[in-house]
Amino acid sequence: MPSKRTVLGIDPGLNKTGWGVVLIEGNNLRYLDHGVIRPDSKKDLASRLNTIYSEVSEVIVRLKPTEAAIEETFMNSNPSSALKLGAARAAAMLAPAHAGIEVSEYGANKIKKAVVGVGHADKAQIAMMVRRLLPTCPEVKDDAADALAVAICHANWSPHLRMSC
Amino acid sequence: MPSKRTVLGIDPGLNKTGWGVVLIEGNNLRYLDHGVIRPDSKKDLASRLNTIYSEVSEVIVRLKPTEAAIEETFMNSNPSSALKLGAARAAAMLAPAHAGIEVSEYGANKIKKAVVGVGHADKAQIAMMVRRLLPTCPEVKDDAADALAVAICHANWSPHLRMSC
Repeated sequence: MPSKRTVLGIDPGLNKTGWGVVLIEGNNLRYLDHGVIRPDSKKDLASRLNTIYSEVSEVIVRLKPTEAAIEETFMNSNPSSALKLGAARAAAMLAPAHAGIEVSEYGANKIKKAVVGVGHADKAQIAMMVRRLLPTCPEVKDDAADALAVAICHANWSPHLRMSC
Repeated sequence: MPSKRTVLGIDPGLNKTGWGVVLIEGNNLRYLDHGVIRPDSKKDLASRLNTIYSEVSEVIVRLKPTEAAIEETFMNSNPSSALKLGAARAAAMLAPAHAGIEVSEYGANKIKKAVVGVGHADKAQIAMMVRRLLPTCPEVKDDAADALAVAICHANWSPHLRMSC
């Protein structure tokens, strides 16, 4: 296990895919960067998936995460939405997988518990707590806040290290 | 438009992804190759998607298709199955998209019509007609036969060329 670990968290979506990267140093978490990928909704599905895959791949090349984490998919009752989310999630996961980086999956409740202490919380509360847990993190919007929350959750739950936060 | 066009057809699935490549020379279709990708079902989702993406990418490097075609997704009533199929389809589409190859999508009825003349047909009938339309094609199983059928359909329907078959 490397002593310095860098975690890429991903909140996937076909319209907006949020990503956030945190550094784990001993028992400390440090904010590195975040962003939101917005595929052009006028383009075809293959092009939009390629935008997600390519931009996540660029983040990986630039920030060299050692591990990745993504939210487990919410079982939407609408098969059409499930198909789109499944596709966006696949494109986002493929970038670290193809780079040889293991991808962990966490349920929404586990992620919320890691950042706000309980399994239910609204997006504003998550964004506020993400900034409290990562003091150097600038203002961050919903999708990227959720992605940073996934990364924090991974730091908390991954078997090698349990954070105190 | 290049006078020689090579079409990669894909029939995606998380357990089995069929692929088939045909060459269009003037009004003639010629079989080039086919195969089935079988991701290890004991591995995690990211690894299985990576197997699909990597093996389709290898086919692209080896056979250099100029265009790609994939079946539109059947709207399964089960969101869990839709998520898995959406993910497998995304991984398969991403390989040509990331290589700069346009990916066309065709509905199941249009594909069947292109190979058997009507919109409804069983898999055995499709496999038989694929071999009739591609005389040099060896015996081919369901998933790869469906992938070759998608490629034949693309040759038929793409605006640049309409085959007589």
